[in-house]
Amino acid sequence: MLKLYSFGPGANSLKPLLTLYEKGLEFEHKQLNPAKFEHHSEWFKALNPRGQVPALDDGGKIVTESTVICEYLEDEYPTEVRLRPENAFDRAQMRIWTKWVDEYFCWCVSTVGWHRYIGGMVKHLSDVEFEDMVAKVPVPEQQVKWRRAREGFPKELLDEEMRKIAVSVRKLDDHLADHEWLAGGMYSLADICNFAIANGMEKGFAEMVNEGDTPHLVRWIRQINGRSAAHDMFAHVPRERFEPARVD
Amino acid sequence: MLKLYSFGPGANSLKPLLTLYEKGLEFEHKQLNPAKFEHHSEWFKALNPRGQVPALDDGGKIVTESTVICEYLEDEYPTEVRLRPENAFDRAQMRIWTKWVDEYFCWCVSTVGWHRYIGGMVKHLSDVEFEDMVAKVPVPEQQVKWRRAREGFPKELLDEEMRKIAVSVRKLDDHLADHEWLAGGMYSLADICNFAIANGMEKGFAEMVNEGDTPHLVRWIRQINGRSAAHDMFAHVPRERFEPARVD
Repeated sequence: MLKLYSFGPGANSLKPLLTLYEKGLEFEHKQLNPAKFEHHSEWFKALNPRGQVPALDDGGKIVTESTVICEYLEDEYPTEVRLRPENAFDRAQMRIWTKWVDEYFCWCVSTVGWHRYIGGMVKHLSDVEFEDMVAKVPVPEQQVKWRRAREGFPKELLDEEMRKIAVSVRKLDDHLADHEWLAGGMYSLADICNFAIANGMEKGFAEMVNEGDTPHLVRWIRQINGRSAAHDMFAHVPRERFEPARVD
Repeated sequence: MLKLYSFGPGANSLKPLLTLYEKGLEFEHKQLNPAKFEHHSEWFKALNPRGQVPALDDGGKIVTESTVICEYLEDEYPTEVRLRPENAFDRAQMRIWTKWVDEYFCWCVSTVGWHRYIGGMVKHLSDVEFEDMVAKVPVPEQQVKWRRAREGFPKELLDEEMRKIAVSVRKLDDHLADHEWLAGGMYSLADICNFAIANGMEKGFAEMVNEGDTPHLVRWIRQINGRSAAHDMFAHVPRERFEPARVD
């Protein structure tokens, strides 16, 4: 049986979750609590030495990296629901969009998300407790990000990230003005991977993503939310939890 | 006929070039001169609005992004030479390696390369000439990189990039100690995309990449250079040119 380790239906974890629901694949779900730093615990780092979710266990074989997991599910479990265009050119367009999420769109949104939510998760810790936690983070760049999130990110960095978010939102809205879906004239991994980051922006970035400024992006977000797979996912998988909690 | 726009057999341009040679595909090659900023000229931006090589023209359809082009060539022209494992799990491992090049390894090496070579390309330009050139760069982050390259990158940034290069080199050497190739027990796009960045490091980063410190990485670099496709590519395609030149 497939087993997915994730934080729940948001950000990178949403990508394989929604893919599994769309494809109607049975799987076991193990939800990790970021506020308890479960992804940096020894048992999880034994599965993924980078200490990052999502990770997929397929009969003992571990696949990591959210976008790679999505393509893996297409390769290994084609099923009747295909989320990748057959045509090579359309497939390339899909990959340009999934690559863009991973290299640009997700990072600017993520930094602002860390600024707003992740910093708060560690404010109740003493310096010693915090550094004990950071010492368990296996990726040095992530250690730096934790420290910055606790101290507060510099304003220039946050301004630059907000500029990139505005660029991203404009790019998506412009493309969706002329296209129902992002690539190949079909709902694909390009949509799922971008939706993973864009969903919720009507709340979190209401000044940028709204019916007046980005009608096409809002239409597309709602269209994906209206799919039965998304309904089922949000109904069955609890939202990720970022509230502060003692490590227990 | 396939037509590839590239800087020649180095860095990201090498990825599709070597893939084309390995697969024995006929193609026309248009070499752009970075020192003349040809990739920021109007005729090229009409093909790729981001003003970046490589770009592939397949009968009028333009595919961009080096790694995406490589996967496109596998999808559209399987030929008898396969550069992607058939097995889905191995293919996922290949993609984790190609993703790692694009998100980590290529950036640290690239910044040091810009520091050493690209800055020199624009030192002969006046401030006005330089800003005229930068105004033609369509990606804002690249404009910032051009200005930093001309002024000189901050030492802290270069130190951090050198740290990441050392991490990358260690990761490759450790993996190649136990594996002939990077993924799936076969020569694949994982090898080609990493070789694109690692080839030449015995010269450019001799203090890190050498027979004593990284014997397995050196063995693998030489093994790829010894392939007939690599021989043919280096024999037929001129190396990229970074010497200063007036825009003419």
